Amino acid sequence: MDCCQWYSALLLLPLLALPSCQGGRILVFPVDGSHWVNMNILLRELHSKGHEITVLRSSNSWYIKEQATHYNSLTISAPDASPVGQDFFTQFLNRTLDIQMRDRSLLTFLALQREVSVLLTKIHRMASQTLVTIFEDPQIIKRLQGFDVVLTDPTIAEGLVMAHRLKLPVVLNVRWTTSGEGHFAIAPSPLSYIPMTGTRFSDRMTFTQRLLNVIIYGLSLYSERFIISAQYDDLCARYCDSGTDIRTLLQSADIWLMRVDFVFEFPRPTMPNVVYMGGFQCQPAKPLAPELEKFMESSGEHGVIVMSLGTLVQSLPREVTAKIASAFAQLPQKIIWRYIGERPQNLGNNTLLVEWLPQNDLLGHPKTRAFVAHGGTNGVYEAIYHGVPVVGLPLLFDQFDNLLRLEVRGAAKVLDFATMSSADYLQALKQVLEKPSYRRNMKKLSTLHHDRPMEPMQSALFWIEYVMGNRGAAHLRTEAYKMPWYSYHSLDVIAVLLAALLVFIITGIGVFRFLCCMVCKRRKTKRE
Amino acid sequence: MDCCQWYSALLLLPLLALPSCQGGRILVFPVDGSHWVNMNILLRELHSKGHEITVLRSSNSWYIKEQATHYNSLTISAPDASPVGQDFFTQFLNRTLDIQMRDRSLLTFLALQREVSVLLTKIHRMASQTLVTIFEDPQIIKRLQGFDVVLTDPTIAEGLVMAHRLKLPVVLNVRWTTSGEGHFAIAPSPLSYIPMTGTRFSDRMTFTQRLLNVIIYGLSLYSERFIISAQYDDLCARYCDSGTDIRTLLQSADIWLMRVDFVFEFPRPTMPNVVYMGGFQCQPAKPLAPELEKFMESSGEHGVIVMSLGTLVQSLPREVTAKIASAFAQLPQKIIWRYIGERPQNLGNNTLLVEWLPQNDLLGHPKTRAFVAHGGTNGVYEAIYHGVPVVGLPLLFDQFDNLLRLEVRGAAKVLDFATMSSADYLQALKQVLEKPSYRRNMKKLSTLHHDRPMEPMQSALFWIEYVMGNRGAAHLRTEAYKMPWYSYHSLDVIAVLLAALLVFIITGIGVFRFLCCMVCKRRKTKRE
Repeated sequence: MDCCQWYSALLLLPLLALPSCQGGRILVFPVDGSHWVNMNILLRELHSKGHEITVLRSSNSWYIKEQATHYNSLTISAPDASPVGQDFFTQFLNRTLDIQMRDRSLLTFLALQREVSVLLTKIHRMASQTLVTIFEDPQIIKRLQGFDVVLTDPTIAEGLVMAHRLKLPVVLNVRWTTSGEGHFAIAPSPLSYIPMTGTRFSDRMTFTQRLLNVIIYGLSLYSERFIISAQYDDLCARYCDSGTDIRTLLQSADIWLMRVDFVFEFPRPTMPNVVYMGGFQCQPAKPLAPELEKFMESSGEHGVIVMSLGTLVQSLPREVTAKIASAFAQLPQKIIWRYIGERPQNLGNNTLLVEWLPQNDLLGHPKTRAFVAHGGTNGVYEAIYHGVPVVGLPLLFDQFDNLLRLEVRGAAKVLDFATMSSADYLQALKQVLEKPSYRRNMKKLSTLHHDRPMEPMQSALFWIEYVMGNRGAAHLRTEAYKMPWYSYHSLDVIAVLLAALLVFIITGIGVFRFLCCMVCKRRKTKRE
Repeated sequence: MDCCQWYSALLLLPLLALPSCQGGRILVFPVDGSHWVNMNILLRELHSKGHEITVLRSSNSWYIKEQATHYNSLTISAPDASPVGQDFFTQFLNRTLDIQMRDRSLLTFLALQREVSVLLTKIHRMASQTLVTIFEDPQIIKRLQGFDVVLTDPTIAEGLVMAHRLKLPVVLNVRWTTSGEGHFAIAPSPLSYIPMTGTRFSDRMTFTQRLLNVIIYGLSLYSERFIISAQYDDLCARYCDSGTDIRTLLQSADIWLMRVDFVFEFPRPTMPNVVYMGGFQCQPAKPLAPELEKFMESSGEHGVIVMSLGTLVQSLPREVTAKIASAFAQLPQKIIWRYIGERPQNLGNNTLLVEWLPQNDLLGHPKTRAFVAHGGTNGVYEAIYHGVPVVGLPLLFDQFDNLLRLEVRGAAKVLDFATMSSADYLQALKQVLEKPSYRRNMKKLSTLHHDRPMEPMQSALFWIEYVMGNRGAAHLRTEAYKMPWYSYHSLDVIAVLLAALLVFIITGIGVFRFLCCMVCKRRKTKRE
């Protein structure tokens, strides 16, 4: 081989490194509902890069279609109806709102929490049972051979157990795991400045907040171990290597594609195998339908407010919609409101009600001045992507925490949905529209979000292909999780050091007392 | 603004985000010696991108030239000769080798350590004095105005104090800080699987190793606080905001360009503002000079061994060179040996001695079969870049740890320079040449090293321009370091929780005893 040949060989190295990433075979174990929306966007891109995708879905799936142009599906028959679907969420939301607006007693709140816990147990037990069905069906197991990688969302642990069983590398599309926010499962997370999800604390906590944060962490550890992880214990004992549980399966994943960006999330420790792809689903705005474009343009210099509370909210209490409509009617702006249900009687002429709206394209429109949102992750990232300040009406789950992250950066005003008056809402809208700092701060976040070496989607694709090409990414993953917990935290070492210190002190005191006695004796002898 | 205009504006966003990165002004505070070699490569690239670079150098600088085409220099007059230069290192190396080969007593070793500690104190005190000279000279201070960023190597803390004084954002070109390996100063570093530098432990430690690791960490904390950081205390008190010390200055740096790659370093926690650029200095091999090329080709199928022990080693003890020469003479390979000093009498015809060699181009030559190296970072990364297996002869500092990282991955065989015989050396060479696993493992590391979304140099340039364009990177940096240490580690929270538990237990016991007494009394009364 002469020099030139050799130089070409060197240039080819990165390509040689990816023998199977050209037309790789990807097995996808998604989570249903809004999680699927994100996963599906990723799958479309993977398909367009020539990879063959097989999606495992349940026969009673809520969002995941059996037929699609960009993936094959493998349907597992489920005996029961799914415990979580549109009806469940609508009902759950209504009850939560009811508690917030009327019955604010601790007992009712605890009853709701208890229900959530029962539901989680049910979901994870069903997931576990589904896997037994799969593992015991030779036909399905046969169809699961020959893949290069498992791509899964670890909010439910099915994909992790499956990958372990099939001895395949794993890429996670993750924000939540079975044990809460993703980072807690993989990176050291000092509780002094990392707030637990649901606490509505920022990264600067008072002493009381830090105390609560630690207590809530303790409760979440308990819940993870005895409510969630326990549902998989039998499964792991039966089908996995000994010593395997959900925690070790999680920590042995090759690459974590984290749906996080640090213009949004508070900075915190991370690991070499965590890749940030927050906002990967965002796109430049496409032109609007002519009618909608006409409406936008008709707003003149005042511009438009876009309001959507996400796909889960089907209808709101009439008293709430009346407050919102009344506030909107007093503004010079035009409003596009994604709204399902009875038309509020006090609706202004400036407000257009729609059953569905092209949210991303509207947020990217130059006439858009503010976004009234519930704080779901997708909407928050779209707002950041397009630099539109937010009026937040959080309802459920992580929405409070999501909006808090925008609020502390001065890019959103957040209201208490249950207690706000029409005047509060109007004032919040006016503040966000008129005070330049909200827009300026959101534009700054947007600028930072766009200023990166690589688009988050490209980064996600690169690392999925990397794992396929290199059959994993073991060198980026610490294997410290295989240590016993007391060794990992050096508690055994500390115990030995403390024991040594104790022996040293006791010996010291002993020697000192002995010397004192000697001196005393000698003095006594002298005196005598 | 119509739609099209607006779309263009969106596309321009990333450019708008970097107003000052086009032709930015960079103030560089480098560290002399081998650290400068790396920094200089980065500066050349920054200059070629149109940035104006000013390098602060001492009048007695060892490596940093006053005149260069790619930077302006600002020379600070130094009264004394530099305490570290070629002479110092040659002398230091000879004494270390002497200890290793002859006087292996603990006392001599401790005496050498003491000397190192005195030397470190001297270096940091001088650095501190230099800064006072600068801060008290209005002429120099005037010339330090108008920069966009400070780029510095934090092995010595001058650049950090300077940046704080000038209120400029900071980018670190870093592997070491004043407190040891870079990660220890910024990311949580569990001592159960992260070995301290100099321990020669891997990431899988025995209990005794973990115990020693914790003790050595304690000693290093002491040394950092009372030997090194203390030299800057007066300076910080005089010229910085209150509460500022070297630790807080380090942790407030915007971006850490870490000269680390995880094909080399063990995986460990990191932070969002750490960017990995390990191997950024490596280049594809350039054609060799005709004479050298002829020598390489003359090696036939057996190929060539390249040997270099770095720039610091000027001469080796005669007994050592004789062992090496004798082993080389017994091999069918040709050898290129970077060698200064008296020609060994038993040198074989197959061995070419040179005073300098184009190391990168030789390692990248297809005839090269093995690399005999001392384990300096540059050489190790070049070996990885070109996929050449290593026979390691570590001499000083981090070289033992560097080579260990290749050894545990099966890509190097490491020898004890002081005690090895000629036969040991020959056997090690034969193993690395003949056992295919060494070459295969090194090629695997090389493949992984090349398989990345972005070249490390490009990544470094991007983030320097990012910091200039966005006037820092505060959103990627946790400010938890501003908390008191006991709050950061939640010790105050733990104390309160333990106290509460104690009160609970004591109350419980009290209530239990009270109830027992009541029952006893009642029984007594009944009986009576």
